[in-house]
Amino acid sequence: MFVNDCLNVNAEGHLTIGGCDTVELAKKYGTPLYVLDENVIRSTCKSYVSSIEKHYNGNGLALYASKALSCKALCELAAEEKMGLDVVSGGELYTALKAGFPVEKIHFHGNNKTYDELNFALDNNIGKIVVDNLTELETINSLCVEKGKIQKIALRIKPGVDAHTHDFIRTGQIDSKFGFALETGEAMEAVKESIKLSNVELTELHCHIGSQIFDIDPFVTAAEIMMDFIRAIKDETSHIVTELNLGGGFGIKYTNKDNPTAYDNYMNSVSRAVHAKAEQYGIPVPFIYIEPGRSIVGEAGITLYTVGAVKTIPNVRTYVSIDGGMCDNIRYALYQSEYTVVTANKADKEPDTVVTVAGKCCESGDLIQENTKIVNAKPGDILAVLSTGAYNYSMASNYNRIPKPPIVMVNNGEDRLIVKRETYEDLIKNDIDL
Amino acid sequence: MFVNDCLNVNAEGHLTIGGCDTVELAKKYGTPLYVLDENVIRSTCKSYVSSIEKHYNGNGLALYASKALSCKALCELAAEEKMGLDVVSGGELYTALKAGFPVEKIHFHGNNKTYDELNFALDNNIGKIVVDNLTELETINSLCVEKGKIQKIALRIKPGVDAHTHDFIRTGQIDSKFGFALETGEAMEAVKESIKLSNVELTELHCHIGSQIFDIDPFVTAAEIMMDFIRAIKDETSHIVTELNLGGGFGIKYTNKDNPTAYDNYMNSVSRAVHAKAEQYGIPVPFIYIEPGRSIVGEAGITLYTVGAVKTIPNVRTYVSIDGGMCDNIRYALYQSEYTVVTANKADKEPDTVVTVAGKCCESGDLIQENTKIVNAKPGDILAVLSTGAYNYSMASNYNRIPKPPIVMVNNGEDRLIVKRETYEDLIKNDIDL
Repeated sequence: MFVNDCLNVNAEGHLTIGGCDTVELAKKYGTPLYVLDENVIRSTCKSYVSSIEKHYNGNGLALYASKALSCKALCELAAEEKMGLDVVSGGELYTALKAGFPVEKIHFHGNNKTYDELNFALDNNIGKIVVDNLTELETINSLCVEKGKIQKIALRIKPGVDAHTHDFIRTGQIDSKFGFALETGEAMEAVKESIKLSNVELTELHCHIGSQIFDIDPFVTAAEIMMDFIRAIKDETSHIVTELNLGGGFGIKYTNKDNPTAYDNYMNSVSRAVHAKAEQYGIPVPFIYIEPGRSIVGEAGITLYTVGAVKTIPNVRTYVSIDGGMCDNIRYALYQSEYTVVTANKADKEPDTVVTVAGKCCESGDLIQENTKIVNAKPGDILAVLSTGAYNYSMASNYNRIPKPPIVMVNNGEDRLIVKRETYEDLIKNDIDL
Repeated sequence: MFVNDCLNVNAEGHLTIGGCDTVELAKKYGTPLYVLDENVIRSTCKSYVSSIEKHYNGNGLALYASKALSCKALCELAAEEKMGLDVVSGGELYTALKAGFPVEKIHFHGNNKTYDELNFALDNNIGKIVVDNLTELETINSLCVEKGKIQKIALRIKPGVDAHTHDFIRTGQIDSKFGFALETGEAMEAVKESIKLSNVELTELHCHIGSQIFDIDPFVTAAEIMMDFIRAIKDETSHIVTELNLGGGFGIKYTNKDNPTAYDNYMNSVSRAVHAKAEQYGIPVPFIYIEPGRSIVGEAGITLYTVGAVKTIPNVRTYVSIDGGMCDNIRYALYQSEYTVVTANKADKEPDTVVTVAGKCCESGDLIQENTKIVNAKPGDILAVLSTGAYNYSMASNYNRIPKPPIVMVNNGEDRLIVKRETYEDLIKNDIDL
């Protein structure tokens, strides 16, 4: 009925998530409120882990890409589910460390890790640094010389695959700020440089072809290109790359128009390509990493808002204003992302009114969705925006000095807070008087 | 030479702001770093105050639109400069109150103020609430009945003026989430409803036609429309509206292509229109409010970054990656806003290289500026992005769990912190363990 099975409608006609009445959650915790279904997150993690078990005989690791939603509880959950973790900043690494995440299972990504961040990562014995550029490679090696240690690294490669997705989230092609290009010879140069350096150990290649991708083909093509490169490295340098990181980017369902492939289909096709190439080239099947982020938390999350003003402009449109906005979900303003909106306290009714859902920020572009059909909403009604688990809390700002909403985790009818609501006091915490 | 006179180049060839060497500031406080020139802010405030003195005989008040940049120090500065304040949320009001801002000079704006926010404003005896819609009007009145008080209000009117600016920041026309439309009769209905209600006192009309506007004409037209409406109200209800709020939206200089009108020219033209209409209609010249935000802090601010990786993709482009990005300046990702970028430690040289300045967030769309000509930048160089005083800190997020940069105020060669850098500890402050 809705985008994910964790959502349902109860006898009162209220939307439920993980067996909890969303209207009751709104009452208990206030709005805006992020809600995450624990079962969806855990079962998605398990599906990745078991896919690796099935298709690679357990010879791999799924890393949770924590940029989708980083907080201590999510890191703890990922650890319990035997996942690794992918962090993209010192702040995400700090969060993981404070959550007690096994450091050897953390990969550190980013196109411009700072000196302080690299230092911090090395001092905490991070499992792997995914090197983006030669400047960074030199910095890591010289820091390791100083510290008297050897750091395992991966190289981020641009496989040159275009995954037919939104411009902003297309990262595999040559015109990207990320990684080393294959076709220019830059990638091979970086490999040779890595081999030459005394205090780094190149074990892994990484690629990431984009986000919110529904096709299997680009993933297969990217995997084949990476296997070709592993062979080329062996041929040219006799260095054997033993690990292959195929990145993330698996699409999720924001609306019923989206039709994501079952993860296992993707894993199956890619695995066959990897095994075929390994056999063809006489190289060992590499240890496989994948990096799902959005697909783990995205559909598991919803955001609840209270409707304030409803403004019908004759022959133009109806604005339904909510008590959040681009401060807690900037994705429509930024990418015109589609979302499903449900009137949570009337979820048993058929949507009957086309409206524009507007945020409360003092900016005309602060819209959550335009021309979306919902059950006629009145002031005081609760709206649920679905599939907001990824890139909503993580991208939240304090625009207009609006405190960030809390996150509640639900599980089989139980609810508990995992991130507290910001307070006004939090907002001025770092302010100094003139 | 640069977009604002507070910027200069010293004997070392370094960019200076307010007489401070930006390279030294970067060393002292670290990067990314927001820097504000106090003199520019104060002199801009003074120019608004003196314009009102000159053109309205002091019969008016300039309100600083704090959504452009809200922190305690800025509220304190605005109060010292005899400005009023415009807040758009409970958080901005809280900041102003903690800064000891005179509450009677605060206007409360917003298309969807919550019940709690209205309650908070009323309990703190806020000067004026700018009412956006009928639901809010009823809520305010009934809260005032409970509290046994009379609240002065304004009504936000859509004058129907199109100010030829970016879609996202165009707010005067009928298709807007803000305010009451004139042409549908909605505005007059709201006036009559306000007059009828026991515990609100309608003294003011408000309009705001958009942002970053360079023409004088739309402001004059809007003022005339509002004066026409004041007369129509008098004719239809015999109620005299004694205050007119003409909003903000005055353009600033982001690059040397921008050519903003001197504020006094705008004030002069609008004032003549207001006086002419008042005389023509035999109504008193209203007390005038204006609401500059961007034009007070925008050009006064710059952001300093350290260059990390520089990546030249042959026949494509050169990416210069910095240690900040869309987390501290989302305006390019959101509106493709133009900015001037200066290599701060080589500011005496002629720009010679076309580059794309990329942020460090793990997202391809995290760019600060594309195809901009700067002095050839190497890792370790300091980049300054100019005119970032408005809507940069205020829109900052913790995307990728990157802490928000601090704000330093400079004044004639002196520097001091007014907002501290966020810490990693701040980021996990509200996290609860699983």
